[in-house]
Amino acid sequence: MEGAVRASFDLLPLVIDRAVAVAVEEDLASGDMTTEACVDSDARAVAHAVARHPLVVCGGTVFARTFTRVDDSLEVECHAEEGARAQAGARLWTVRGLARSILMAERVALNFVQRMSGIATMTRAFVDAVPPGTKARIADTRKTTPGLRALERYAVRVGGGHNHRDNPGAAVLIKDNHIAASGGVRRSIHRARGAAPHTTKIACEVDSLEQLDEALEAGADVVLLDNMDLNAVAAAVARAEGRVVLEVSGGVTLDRVSELARTGVDVISVGALTPSVATADIALDFEP
Amino acid sequence: MEGAVRASFDLLPLVIDRAVAVAVEEDLASGDMTTEACVDSDARAVAHAVARHPLVVCGGTVFARTFTRVDDSLEVECHAEEGARAQAGARLWTVRGLARSILMAERVALNFVQRMSGIATMTRAFVDAVPPGTKARIADTRKTTPGLRALERYAVRVGGGHNHRDNPGAAVLIKDNHIAASGGVRRSIHRARGAAPHTTKIACEVDSLEQLDEALEAGADVVLLDNMDLNAVAAAVARAEGRVVLEVSGGVTLDRVSELARTGVDVISVGALTPSVATADIALDFEP
Amino acid sequence: MEGAVRASFDLLPLVIDRAVAVAVEEDLASGDMTTEACVDSDARAVAHAVARHPLVVCGGTVFARTFTRVDDSLEVECHAEEGARAQAGARLWTVRGLARSILMAERVALNFVQRMSGIATMTRAFVDAVPPGTKARIADTRKTTPGLRALERYAVRVGGGHNHRDNPGAAVLIKDNHIAASGGVRRSIHRARGAAPHTTKIACEVDSLEQLDEALEAGADVVLLDNMDLNAVAAAVARAEGRVVLEVSGGVTLDRVSELARTGVDVISVGALTPSVATADIALDFEP
Amino acid sequence: MEGAVRASFDLLPLVIDRAVAVAVEEDLASGDMTTEACVDSDARAVAHAVARHPLVVCGGTVFARTFTRVDDSLEVECHAEEGARAQAGARLWTVRGLARSILMAERVALNFVQRMSGIATMTRAFVDAVPPGTKARIADTRKTTPGLRALERYAVRVGGGHNHRDNPGAAVLIKDNHIAASGGVRRSIHRARGAAPHTTKIACEVDSLEQLDEALEAGADVVLLDNMDLNAVAAAVARAEGRVVLEVSGGVTLDRVSELARTGVDVISVGALTPSVATADIALDFEP
Amino acid sequence: MEGAVRASFDLLPLVIDRAVAVAVEEDLASGDMTTEACVDSDARAVAHAVARHPLVVCGGTVFARTFTRVDDSLEVECHAEEGARAQAGARLWTVRGLARSILMAERVALNFVQRMSGIATMTRAFVDAVPPGTKARIADTRKTTPGLRALERYAVRVGGGHNHRDNPGAAVLIKDNHIAASGGVRRSIHRARGAAPHTTKIACEVDSLEQLDEALEAGADVVLLDNMDLNAVAAAVARAEGRVVLEVSGGVTLDRVSELARTGVDVISVGALTPSVATADIALDFEP
Amino acid sequence: MEGAVRASFDLLPLVIDRAVAVAVEEDLASGDMTTEACVDSDARAVAHAVARHPLVVCGGTVFARTFTRVDDSLEVECHAEEGARAQAGARLWTVRGLARSILMAERVALNFVQRMSGIATMTRAFVDAVPPGTKARIADTRKTTPGLRALERYAVRVGGGHNHRDNPGAAVLIKDNHIAASGGVRRSIHRARGAAPHTTKIACEVDSLEQLDEALEAGADVVLLDNMDLNAVAAAVARAEGRVVLEVSGGVTLDRVSELARTGVDVISVGALTPSVATADIALDFEP
Repeated sequence: MEGAVRASFDLLPLVIDRAVAVAVEEDLASGDMTTEACVDSDARAVAHAVARHPLVVCGGTVFARTFTRVDDSLEVECHAEEGARAQAGARLWTVRGLARSILMAERVALNFVQRMSGIATMTRAFVDAVPPGTKARIADTRKTTPGLRALERYAVRVGGGHNHRDNPGAAVLIKDNHIAASGGVRRSIHRARGAAPHTTKIACEVDSLEQLDEALEAGADVVLLDNMDLNAVAAAVARAEGRVVLEVSGGVTLDRVSELARTGVDVISVGALTPSVATADIALDFEP
Repeated sequence: MEGAVRASFDLLPLVIDRAVAVAVEEDLASGDMTTEACVDSDARAVAHAVARHPLVVCGGTVFARTFTRVDDSLEVECHAEEGARAQAGARLWTVRGLARSILMAERVALNFVQRMSGIATMTRAFVDAVPPGTKARIADTRKTTPGLRALERYAVRVGGGHNHRDNPGAAVLIKDNHIAASGGVRRSIHRARGAAPHTTKIACEVDSLEQLDEALEAGADVVLLDNMDLNAVAAAVARAEGRVVLEVSGGVTLDRVSELARTGVDVISVGALTPSVATADIALDFEP
Repeated sequence: MEGAVRASFDLLPLVIDRAVAVAVEEDLASGDMTTEACVDSDARAVAHAVARHPLVVCGGTVFARTFTRVDDSLEVECHAEEGARAQAGARLWTVRGLARSILMAERVALNFVQRMSGIATMTRAFVDAVPPGTKARIADTRKTTPGLRALERYAVRVGGGHNHRDNPGAAVLIKDNHIAASGGVRRSIHRARGAAPHTTKIACEVDSLEQLDEALEAGADVVLLDNMDLNAVAAAVARAEGRVVLEVSGGVTLDRVSELARTGVDVISVGALTPSVATADIALDFEP
Repeated sequence: MEGAVRASFDLLPLVIDRAVAVAVEEDLASGDMTTEACVDSDARAVAHAVARHPLVVCGGTVFARTFTRVDDSLEVECHAEEGARAQAGARLWTVRGLARSILMAERVALNFVQRMSGIATMTRAFVDAVPPGTKARIADTRKTTPGLRALERYAVRVGGGHNHRDNPGAAVLIKDNHIAASGGVRRSIHRARGAAPHTTKIACEVDSLEQLDEALEAGADVVLLDNMDLNAVAAAVARAEGRVVLEVSGGVTLDRVSELARTGVDVISVGALTPSVATADIALDFEP
Repeated sequence: MEGAVRASFDLLPLVIDRAVAVAVEEDLASGDMTTEACVDSDARAVAHAVARHPLVVCGGTVFARTFTRVDDSLEVECHAEEGARAQAGARLWTVRGLARSILMAERVALNFVQRMSGIATMTRAFVDAVPPGTKARIADTRKTTPGLRALERYAVRVGGGHNHRDNPGAAVLIKDNHIAASGGVRRSIHRARGAAPHTTKIACEVDSLEQLDEALEAGADVVLLDNMDLNAVAAAVARAEGRVVLEVSGGVTLDRVSELARTGVDVISVGALTPSVATADIALDFEP
Repeated sequence: MEGAVRASFDLLPLVIDRAVAVAVEEDLASGDMTTEACVDSDARAVAHAVARHPLVVCGGTVFARTFTRVDDSLEVECHAEEGARAQAGARLWTVRGLARSILMAERVALNFVQRMSGIATMTRAFVDAVPPGTKARIADTRKTTPGLRALERYAVRVGGGHNHRDNPGAAVLIKDNHIAASGGVRRSIHRARGAAPHTTKIACEVDSLEQLDEALEAGADVVLLDNMDLNAVAAAVARAEGRVVLEVSGGVTLDRVSELARTGVDVISVGALTPSVATADIALDFEP
């Protein structure tokens, strides 16, 4: 699919604008002496963003917005849909216009899409590792890069993953410290049920089957099995009998996804999707 | 060294404040239903940030500021100097005060220091790989996380590394596209020398010894040897005879540092230090 | 309970700060000519915020922050707990310090607490109208004053009410237009279940018992009975048999609360709680 | 008058932009899961803002800006002039474009125009209550919703009312506490005259005819009769003989406007116009 | 008067904070490499702001806030009241604390007070040029430095001058283009009277005695005599007979003040006070 | 050259936008009562910015952006290139569109270009004073107006001058206090060399030929001769033999430029270029 880069409906322009404005200002508030000195003010150029290795494409609207934020006369064309698998050498997007503007915005635009495509690519690998016939979702966590949560969650979705709660005001998630502070799993769930909006699910983290039973009995909607071994996870699935959404988390690596999914859990959340992910190698090649 | 967490003079409070404000608001603008429901409003707690594996400590002032931004009655104590090597299990910082506030701020504070300590730790590994008797600096690049450049550059310094130019207004760096646009290495350097402040160094990226010669003759202050092999780098060092600062860059990995440094180059810049680095595993353990 | 105005843990200082900063700047960016002209710069005063009629107290931390934002040497004392019922003439808070600063901040501080206490007072009236032995919660809606949602939701909680979802990223709420666009209640619920985080409840608005059946069958977590008459609501409660949370909404007035609650519904949401509520009459009386 | 929604010259785009940005971000920063899940990304819709009861139209530019802030490809058409009286069922504005974008922006846009039209409608009622042959203006006060003062003052103008001073830097207004602090009406007026710009009017609040005399003698430009009964107001008008602008304020209700106006006062200011006003019922109806 | 630098009640902390934050970030967002490299992190210093020539002191709170914004452990002491005349060599303020912090903040702090004291000094010269026995105020204009209006207006007051209207929402000022657009002086004044708040004065610029008559008859509150010669000004004063405030403006220089004041005009407004004023020479001397 | 006002590539739109937004809001947040009252809402006008005296043109993009920020339907045409010398009476730019919008934005737009053109004009005078056959650059300093540094530095370039370092993170500049704190010129330079990025020049201020020798020996890149007399400057040039960039600074006036340049120095930096410069007289003339 080729065409103009459309505003994605999954990422509000307001959100993109703010992230792009911060990044452009961080890099370019003092100008770009090299480009101004070496490139004629009326020189024009065409540059292609190219995948240097196979990757899942992500960030086209952010890429386009970065260039137009620097110079709104630049034109950005899109060659690849969000979420598409690109081969090494594939052209993803093309920028046309004043050479100075393109060179100025290049680094910031690449910093965004290298991270976003890196996350989408890694997420896709985890999603593809879920064996056919099993139902586990791959989900992110709240371990996101400060200031970039909306973009990183979007990249996870683009990679085929699912989001966890956006923030602690969007769902209840009772952890060990909450349990300790409120006097047990049951009491935590009851307190949360009483205080949270009726539109809110109650998730509870447990580290034993006894705690699981207590959570089931108290009416949790979601139970997180934290750092449990495979046998315990399987036992938990058996015991829950589908009454709650079961999530496993804690140190999930790519080679464990298959066996975890086969236990029948509903969700596998992966902290490594967002903060430490290897950025994708995307370069900007100028037409000679 | 134990004591209160002092404002670091390498990271302006204004810069910390802004990054922390963005991150706290991103995570907590809708409150934390779980903590408010499960933890009594007057319950107090003590929690220790603990290294889960050996790491280089970084981010104490950001850690402290995150907690006090959420509740300025919290007290944060520092057990480890910035840049110190911590063992697995070492206590880095301690927070004391209202349990609710500590639980609310925990995730954001950890998101910051896991990234910052991850960068410092990785930088330290590169720095330690430079053989004794050689002089190469390990330097970062402009491939930083959008919005977090100042924090990431600081983490590189804490890890023993050096910073590259902060932004394109801080030094001239002529790359292949600038050379193409302005008509060659010599002409680029002359244009830049004429336009840039007299306080500005002129760096030029070259991909051949011929270009190196041209840059030397035109009076470049710094020459970047981009993606050259080891022999070419060694030849460049010989040819430059100390007249310029020589920097190598492009796909530098930890196991290449030693041989690159032995060529006699002045600077090895490592794009991988900042965007893709593995976050450090730092946890917040509550006293029972 | 008397004492210093403590930071409320239900309203993040960051959230209060931002609202107060906007309002103070809106009112005082050009200074206060009258106060500067008529009041000596070293004159001191004591002023008491006094309820002019019976009300539910709300907004102490916002009140205090407004004064200290204008002059951080002002001292604010608290005489009434958030949520307490105050009689006409009751002193709620006291401000001490430079007379100029108190006079400058007075109007903005009152604008906040008159609105917040008005909402808390109105909410309390609805909550008190729920008959003993019935279980209905009084909940707010997303019809809040632009820019003040966090403060208004807090005021609803202080008045004994419950919050609805904070924003459209915090829970799924399928309305008539979504149903029309996606091809029916069942299909909407299935699409939402597939796309939303596993920590998210699916609420669906229905306007007939047939739609209710469809929603129940499709596994909605919450069903909103929109503008149904009393008999239909009662029938819905009978049909749901506790399998979902049932909410009634649409034109709920104080005198309908009792009969609605007696039907056995779980939640009564009231659009009138936040945007149009009568502000409470709170005045600032200066000691002579 | 039909046509595109023009930028109103009474409300600076900068002011609209800022208010809309805050409100859109408050509601939509975490996206709209329901709409993204249930509505196809290329579905288009047409929706009409419709008055549910007779009202005075206000807020068209804010309405339009909210939709275009969410998606600048949306088109908004205007069917009613600002200040026009609309009947129940009248179409005010029409939005066309992607269904997702319209559904996302709907709540925020309605929150704005319901408040603004509510204020315009109430103001119009007060203005219409002024008997023919009398000259009293209906004016607002500084009791506005924090953050929305410019929009609310605009709505008062649209409803046929007049604005009071915008902020304490725009006119002098001496109140009881200023009088007490500076040693009397006369001295307050002299101090204010000496300190304020020569372009500034001096208004003074009085609560007795003695104070009125003092204010007249000291050369006040405007005198506020605060909470005086009808006879006292009439006496004040007689005594002032047109030498000052006379304003009555304090607990003015709709049924008192007529008799107050007949006393011959120049201005009737109504605190109830802005903070507590009933929002207008405007709905967004989608074309099937 | 010696002592801590108190918050000035003429300049809201919020206003100071915002100006200082912008300036500190503009200068220091990338840190101060020199100071960090050359000054030990625990070195302490004492530095005195010293007048290099006679001047009127202005900006103490802004000076102090700049230093504490960079490092809130710095202590700033005040030796001179705002508006005092300082001799060459006089100590105005003293900063104590970490040497690094003082050196970092020095330039920004001086940039503020050099401008503010320059304006106060120039204003004082104009004010002193008004002969005894005449009544003319020296007033500023709206020709202020973008972003610094509140600070510059404050400096004018500190220098003994008066402010003109703060902004076009604070008073009506009818100029030649308004007169042309609305069809004459009389009609402009009537339109403005009808539209502006009753708390607003109507000022009108005239360039002939005929226009003055028209303005007087239409009931202007203030008349600006724009670029009139001395005879015309004197004639205008005679004709106005004290019925309006008379202001002269346009190319007023220091040596014309005396003769202008002797005509009996009420106000002399001086565009040169704010944008082009010579900054005061204030240096920061470190104790050896 | 006539045509549309193009985005200048020397001044990022983001930078212009922010400066313009601050200034427009500062002036117009409360509207413009006079214009709204006196000018019909559909009246159109054409206005020309005209030089009242010979000047160097600067600020066209800022001028245009100010008008379009107030009303994006305004059209601005450019008659003069940035840096061109305009005669008295020359038309610089023309604005066309709604009369209200033009009148509202006029003052802010003029405040910008009067300052920018003033700086460009003054800079040009200094640049022209450099005798043919000498090589000295005229450079600005960090003594810029708080908040306007980027615009003022741009104006210096437009006037033919050069910029000094943008901020203390862009180059090392060792001053007397750094030398005192670190123990001498040599030690300061060594510390700075070790700490600063390898892309950074080391500049050092000296006040004697002995210090100059020390700086040359330690390998400074730039040496500032601070407040030295002409003979000392000449001696310094002789002694440096071209090994460093030599800059003179301190009290440089227009009539000293020639003799300073003839000594052979490389740079003459002029503190007076930016903060105290006389604004250019540019007026906005409306077509009748």
